[in-house]
Amino acid sequence: MSRLGTTSLPEHVGATVTVAGWVHRRRQLKSVTFLIVRDGVGLAQAVVTDADLRARLAELPEESVVEVTGRVVANPAAPAGVELVEPTVRPLGDPAVPPPFDVYRPELTAALPTQLDHAAVALRHPTRSAALRISAALVAGFRSTLDGLGFVEVHTPKIVASATESGANVFAIDYFGRPGYLAQSPQFYKQMLVGVLERVYEVGPVFRAEPHDTTRHLAQYTSLDVEFGFVTDHRDVMRMLRTTLAGMLGHLPDRAGAVLATLGVELPVVPSEIPAVHFTEALWIAGAPPDEPDLAPVHERALGEWARTEHGSDFLFVTGYPMAKRPFYTHPATTEVPSGGPTRAYTNGFDLLFRGVELVTGGQRLHRHQDYLTALAARGEDPTPYASYLDAFRHGMPPHGGFALGLERMVARLLGAGNVREVTAFPRDLHRLTP
Amino acid sequence: MSRLGTTSLPEHVGATVTVAGWVHRRRQLKSVTFLIVRDGVGLAQAVVTDADLRARLAELPEESVVEVTGRVVANPAAPAGVELVEPTVRPLGDPAVPPPFDVYRPELTAALPTQLDHAAVALRHPTRSAALRISAALVAGFRSTLDGLGFVEVHTPKIVASATESGANVFAIDYFGRPGYLAQSPQFYKQMLVGVLERVYEVGPVFRAEPHDTTRHLAQYTSLDVEFGFVTDHRDVMRMLRTTLAGMLGHLPDRAGAVLATLGVELPVVPSEIPAVHFTEALWIAGAPPDEPDLAPVHERALGEWARTEHGSDFLFVTGYPMAKRPFYTHPATTEVPSGGPTRAYTNGFDLLFRGVELVTGGQRLHRHQDYLTALAARGEDPTPYASYLDAFRHGMPPHGGFALGLERMVARLLGAGNVREVTAFPRDLHRLTP
Repeated sequence: MSRLGTTSLPEHVGATVTVAGWVHRRRQLKSVTFLIVRDGVGLAQAVVTDADLRARLAELPEESVVEVTGRVVANPAAPAGVELVEPTVRPLGDPAVPPPFDVYRPELTAALPTQLDHAAVALRHPTRSAALRISAALVAGFRSTLDGLGFVEVHTPKIVASATESGANVFAIDYFGRPGYLAQSPQFYKQMLVGVLERVYEVGPVFRAEPHDTTRHLAQYTSLDVEFGFVTDHRDVMRMLRTTLAGMLGHLPDRAGAVLATLGVELPVVPSEIPAVHFTEALWIAGAPPDEPDLAPVHERALGEWARTEHGSDFLFVTGYPMAKRPFYTHPATTEVPSGGPTRAYTNGFDLLFRGVELVTGGQRLHRHQDYLTALAARGEDPTPYASYLDAFRHGMPPHGGFALGLERMVARLLGAGNVREVTAFPRDLHRLTP
Repeated sequence: MSRLGTTSLPEHVGATVTVAGWVHRRRQLKSVTFLIVRDGVGLAQAVVTDADLRARLAELPEESVVEVTGRVVANPAAPAGVELVEPTVRPLGDPAVPPPFDVYRPELTAALPTQLDHAAVALRHPTRSAALRISAALVAGFRSTLDGLGFVEVHTPKIVASATESGANVFAIDYFGRPGYLAQSPQFYKQMLVGVLERVYEVGPVFRAEPHDTTRHLAQYTSLDVEFGFVTDHRDVMRMLRTTLAGMLGHLPDRAGAVLATLGVELPVVPSEIPAVHFTEALWIAGAPPDEPDLAPVHERALGEWARTEHGSDFLFVTGYPMAKRPFYTHPATTEVPSGGPTRAYTNGFDLLFRGVELVTGGQRLHRHQDYLTALAARGEDPTPYASYLDAFRHGMPPHGGFALGLERMVARLLGAGNVREVTAFPRDLHRLTP
């Protein structure tokens, strides 16, 4: 099948060409039918005056798949400035059953649960497919930035033997008659691989048996994970994250310029140095009690406002999170803690807020075997389930750190979507396991 | 920490520089100790004559992490033609516990199970880490080839509601108190997304509860999945696969030239047209009975030999697999079936053999809703569990097809590894759930 993409028609004015795609819309006027065809790259308009063809088109509902051959004619009033005239239309399948909502309207007005129930069709709406293209472009920017810095992409197990990695809820699995669990993150594996490759990243699914139904949590999401060795402290990790974000967003106009324009997205600027506040200061700025152990969403929103007002920045680092709310592998604080907060153990762990929402968690990790044993003992945890992980540290590991970024959350925040499910192809949550 | 990668030392002859990494080996001679440091990119040699430092190095076993500062001196006898002289050495952690096997020897001689039990250390051996680098380079070539052809990368659910997709064994999971299953492939999702984006690919984990302990199966592996619309038949898919393979292997020297040289790998040439035989002919070539429904490994090996002898090719397509052994979504044969085989239903499904092993499965899929209902009915299957998948076909889908390639199997075959576990960072199988 020799065909052109719809967006290349302006280069073929005067020629007779073939496009193929979905009937996006038919506008049947008194003496002419405008047939809008949607393919993987855009839209093209065909002008049909032949009475017989007009009658046949009346029987081809929206979303039917067709091949259209016609002559390309310039018409400033048509989409993209060209249209196909004197077309022939060949159906490439049976007439489509009309979808439960109109894909051709500017906005998808069906309720979100209805859209998600019919995801295979709802995703065809240009605003929904744009989110998928932007996701792909961000991940491509992530990889190319890190590839350029000597990182190696890895693939790690998603089925693990113990449920102990973090406090979050895990999914249990029957692993050949033994208990197994879905990995909540590639944390242990990416650290072990720092011992092998020094700089690694992974793009893959992570699983959280999140018992709450919120607009920003999913039971499966795509985690962009980075870990690297030979850092001085968490500030090296924050600089690497800043470089990575700038690379992701910087690639976006090239890779997804058309869909950004479709959505009218204003891209954030990544400051050359992202403002950073210590956790103790963050509580004060957010108006939270000074002994809070963590930031609540309302605090994050206040901090987002503050970063915008005070620094003109969509991004804000919060550093020095208290140990009480961080995993055992977190490195204790090695930089100065501001006065004014309660006496407690702080860490070299940080979060990055993007427009008032936690987007990235990262930090420096412990790297001495004895420090791991001490940290586990301090939490009253048995080191046995961690044996194969701890083995890496017995055999030499450099000071290292890393971070994890949730892809769907970043896209949602970028597009101003109120619910992360609006930018996820087939979301999984407490209630949803299909499609 | 300001440091250079070991491979850049030749550019700094005469300068005093710092490298950091693992003590790969110490060679303690009568009046000098050669300290070989391994970092993420290579090896560097430091020449230690200072008695005090020599004594301290005697207490720093292999795999300890160190920072070494010294003057770069040309020495044709040293690795890479340079070495560091008059060095200072600063440990970046506690002395390492010596690994259970020597990482510095040319070959890792420990038995495979021992290597896998201690993967965090075994992977540090240059032959093992090379396989991970080659995996990353192949995936990078896969993506860049497909990105250039207008494909969009997608991320699909790994937890699904039904165990019906294929005949293979599935892992059951407790999904918030309901039954769920780990996805055996992204097949249904990538097809639905052809309706959205027209051309999609995914690189992600797939799960097979494989009850057999073989050298080429894993319970989790990395599947490179491609699907695209507007094909005439499976031959378009085979051409796309050929282009993709050529892109993957073509990028390898640029992206992983050093490790290819380390391993002495001879890269296969992808013929401009990969030889293809029909399933009926394949049975005849392999000396199998003409009514066999599938190819056994012994047949694949014979076909690999034949392709090499007759066509000088490491690759061979086998087309037209019988419907009996293909999933219900497989498109029936539309091209001529050679005479000589039994009368049975053939398909537009194919396999690609690489050096006598099945590497890729692909084909054209059904695209009409009614054909799906007919195909399921012919197998006595209830369409209900497939409802949200079948929905896509009710609402218009183009003729399409795709393929899936197993990454670990490709790397194993490329490197001549006898067992796919040798090239997998942390394999999962019937017996292994750690590390």
